[in-house]
Amino acid sequence: MKGASGSISPGDLPAEDLRRLGHEVADWIADYVASVGDLRVFPDVVPGDVRRSLPAAPPEAGESMEAALADFRDIIVPGVTHWNHPAFFGYFAITGSGPGILGEMLSAALNVNAMVWRSSPAATELEEVATDWLRQLVGLPDDFDGVINDTASHSTLYALAAAREVAYPEVHDGGLFGLPRGRVYASEHAHSSVEKAVMTLGFGRSGYRTIPSDDAFRMRTDALEAAMEEDEAAGIRPVAVVPTLGTTSVTSLDPVGEIVPLARAHGAWVHVDAAYGGPAAIVPELRPLLSGWEGADSIVINPHKWLFTPTDCSTLYCRRPGVLVRAFSLIPEYLRSTEQGDVKNLMDYGVALGRRFRALKLWFVLRWFGRDGIVANIREHVRLARLLESWADASEDWEVAAPVPLGLVCLRHAPPRMSDERADDINQLILDRVNGSGKAFLSHTKLHGRLVLRVAVGNLKTTERHVAALWDLLRESAAAATSD
Amino acid sequence: MKGASGSISPGDLPAEDLRRLGHEVADWIADYVASVGDLRVFPDVVPGDVRRSLPAAPPEAGESMEAALADFRDIIVPGVTHWNHPAFFGYFAITGSGPGILGEMLSAALNVNAMVWRSSPAATELEEVATDWLRQLVGLPDDFDGVINDTASHSTLYALAAAREVAYPEVHDGGLFGLPRGRVYASEHAHSSVEKAVMTLGFGRSGYRTIPSDDAFRMRTDALEAAMEEDEAAGIRPVAVVPTLGTTSVTSLDPVGEIVPLARAHGAWVHVDAAYGGPAAIVPELRPLLSGWEGADSIVINPHKWLFTPTDCSTLYCRRPGVLVRAFSLIPEYLRSTEQGDVKNLMDYGVALGRRFRALKLWFVLRWFGRDGIVANIREHVRLARLLESWADASEDWEVAAPVPLGLVCLRHAPPRMSDERADDINQLILDRVNGSGKAFLSHTKLHGRLVLRVAVGNLKTTERHVAALWDLLRESAAAATSD
Repeated sequence: MKGASGSISPGDLPAEDLRRLGHEVADWIADYVASVGDLRVFPDVVPGDVRRSLPAAPPEAGESMEAALADFRDIIVPGVTHWNHPAFFGYFAITGSGPGILGEMLSAALNVNAMVWRSSPAATELEEVATDWLRQLVGLPDDFDGVINDTASHSTLYALAAAREVAYPEVHDGGLFGLPRGRVYASEHAHSSVEKAVMTLGFGRSGYRTIPSDDAFRMRTDALEAAMEEDEAAGIRPVAVVPTLGTTSVTSLDPVGEIVPLARAHGAWVHVDAAYGGPAAIVPELRPLLSGWEGADSIVINPHKWLFTPTDCSTLYCRRPGVLVRAFSLIPEYLRSTEQGDVKNLMDYGVALGRRFRALKLWFVLRWFGRDGIVANIREHVRLARLLESWADASEDWEVAAPVPLGLVCLRHAPPRMSDERADDINQLILDRVNGSGKAFLSHTKLHGRLVLRVAVGNLKTTERHVAALWDLLRESAAAATSD
Repeated sequence: MKGASGSISPGDLPAEDLRRLGHEVADWIADYVASVGDLRVFPDVVPGDVRRSLPAAPPEAGESMEAALADFRDIIVPGVTHWNHPAFFGYFAITGSGPGILGEMLSAALNVNAMVWRSSPAATELEEVATDWLRQLVGLPDDFDGVINDTASHSTLYALAAAREVAYPEVHDGGLFGLPRGRVYASEHAHSSVEKAVMTLGFGRSGYRTIPSDDAFRMRTDALEAAMEEDEAAGIRPVAVVPTLGTTSVTSLDPVGEIVPLARAHGAWVHVDAAYGGPAAIVPELRPLLSGWEGADSIVINPHKWLFTPTDCSTLYCRRPGVLVRAFSLIPEYLRSTEQGDVKNLMDYGVALGRRFRALKLWFVLRWFGRDGIVANIREHVRLARLLESWADASEDWEVAAPVPLGLVCLRHAPPRMSDERADDINQLILDRVNGSGKAFLSHTKLHGRLVLRVAVGNLKTTERHVAALWDLLRESAAAATSD
């Protein structure tokens, strides 16, 4: 039996059933975004709970969508970590905003694949427009050409493939076999995706060299210079430097303005990982933090992090797009076509041939918020982060473990006379208590070998009330943990 | 001014506006899927039309979502190539089915990122369940472990990274520098993404060797064996063989049962590209076409191609998932967590750290259709393709340029006494006329150097009436082209 119509046709869900269920789902979504704050952030499940609640084998006959939607509500939702919750402070807090959700709904229905211009002209051209709007908002020069990928991991992989193409013109045909070793440099706080990209590209882990950071967790340019010089003396080629603007651990911003000329002097490509920090450049008083990034060869900014766009949406800007195309362009006959005029074939800018219509949601987000709305929201997130920082600073039992340039506060419960080892244990207990309470969700990192709690403020529904409640919860959890 | 509420808050779209607009969008989607067949398939635009219709600069103040949705309807939709149209026969015809659309709506609202188990237990475990259901449906052994990626291009890249890890244990640390050359083999009809993956991994274009095919466009195993032997004699290591089950040009199926033991004998990994053809294994009478694929090391199947799931959804099955993990697993502190029990951290299986909740739409699709519904629909697509083949066979002015094992017909207008060169020109004119008419959309390929029209049947709304109308349109276009 299928749907309310009782039809046993094996075809698609009839349009009228899709309309009825679409309305039900639209209501569910509106209720969800209005009330997600009442749910536990981290679910009350142990590994295997969700899997065991579902049949081990697929259905032989089709089932009704009503049954599937009921299981979604009863089994899936209670097993979800609610990233769209105002008390989600883990990893990087993000928002699936209303305009973005509407964009994803429409993209799914159109289901276009903008691999070449003619496979969807509007999707291709809207991607050009939306990425160019974002470029203007963050204040990058107009020779940066943008494309949208799924993740920063892939954007960085593609950028470093272009860097490899420049460092080794022979690689395109002959590969890395027999070529002199090369290296990519990033700070010890760079994202793991940089090392993954380097490994994927065939450089091996020894093709990746981490550079020590200063007291503010920023890449030390003297150490970078020394590393490149040492490597060059040993016959190792500097291929690329990857400064981060907003590291995952602490949101530190590498001094990209100093790094660019250093990298240039050694012939290295500069790829800036601004996946998290990029949108901060839209806010006038924060823009100086990113100063110098306009000198890079490529930059990744993820609207699905701090720009209210549902995941996935990662924009890769490249001022040498011809190199990116050279690294990836292979045009098989079945995709060859001759268009009149200037067309962009998005498949030429990376590995992925298939491409969802991701520009639509980004365009909706940029239109709804406008520059003013983006500035106001990012500014508020930074204010909330600094507020929490000020409370922790004022408490002798807590320390702020890193500067707070953007929306992340790194905290550690460290009362006077508590040993570092004991404090590590206590902070782990605090983390477990907070997450186990379901009232808020945090993640952690290690700084100087010590466990630190990360509080990322980035969801649009997060208000001062949520941050104050978290601060209470942290102190209660600390009291409980130390009295255990 | 914002929304109907007139609020000037810079925050997210209020929930009640999201509800109202969600209903509007749900209606638009239902109307769209009900009536997309009345639209032009390929839009009446030239390059730049869409871009020029949009403001060159982003808005300073936020706009209403009503305005954005109006522009979507008035500017974007008329510029889209309608992949969800029943007369879309280009590339591979696909379907954004109703259940899949509902799944994408919900995924966008939840906005979870299942990079590790705890970042969303239900998304991680539903991915395990849905990929295992699909494994059972296609009849693969239970030691194949599945993960969902965005595209087959990335799935293949990851599989070949695992193959590289096996062929060169040293690559993990030292990279390819100084190692003996290696090669990946695929038929001359393999997808371009295989060569892109090989280049990305640092093998260069010379690390990719195409193997000639037989009369049915299937990889010649004698030529494969000779190539591997020749390469080995020259000190080149066979790293992987990539048979295709359903090539993009002609949907030929390489003899994977013969290829597997050959590859094994030379120590090469076997990665099967069943991105298009995989779902055919769900249909009993088609399953023998894929016989032998169960011996492979890894297999990619794209539910977003012939399994009615909105793009993007590519499942990568690997029977040596430990190798895949070894190639990609790098766990930074901020993602480290100790779960009790057996948890899967999806980020360990590829480059992309961020992961949308793609399993939800696939699960909805498998539940709605069930095995029976999938079988009935794929069977009908194959019947329609063979019907068109029979019509062309019966016409002395048309030739069927390749066997029709699945849902694709390769046609060429080639009346008696027309030269090959003239026929190439005529077929190009036919292609341009068909696509320019807006009544149907085709793509092309070249076989034996000659232009061939591809008719891919794969959309759920495509019926015999649409195929018959296309056949009329092809003949009318041929008559018009030859009389010009």
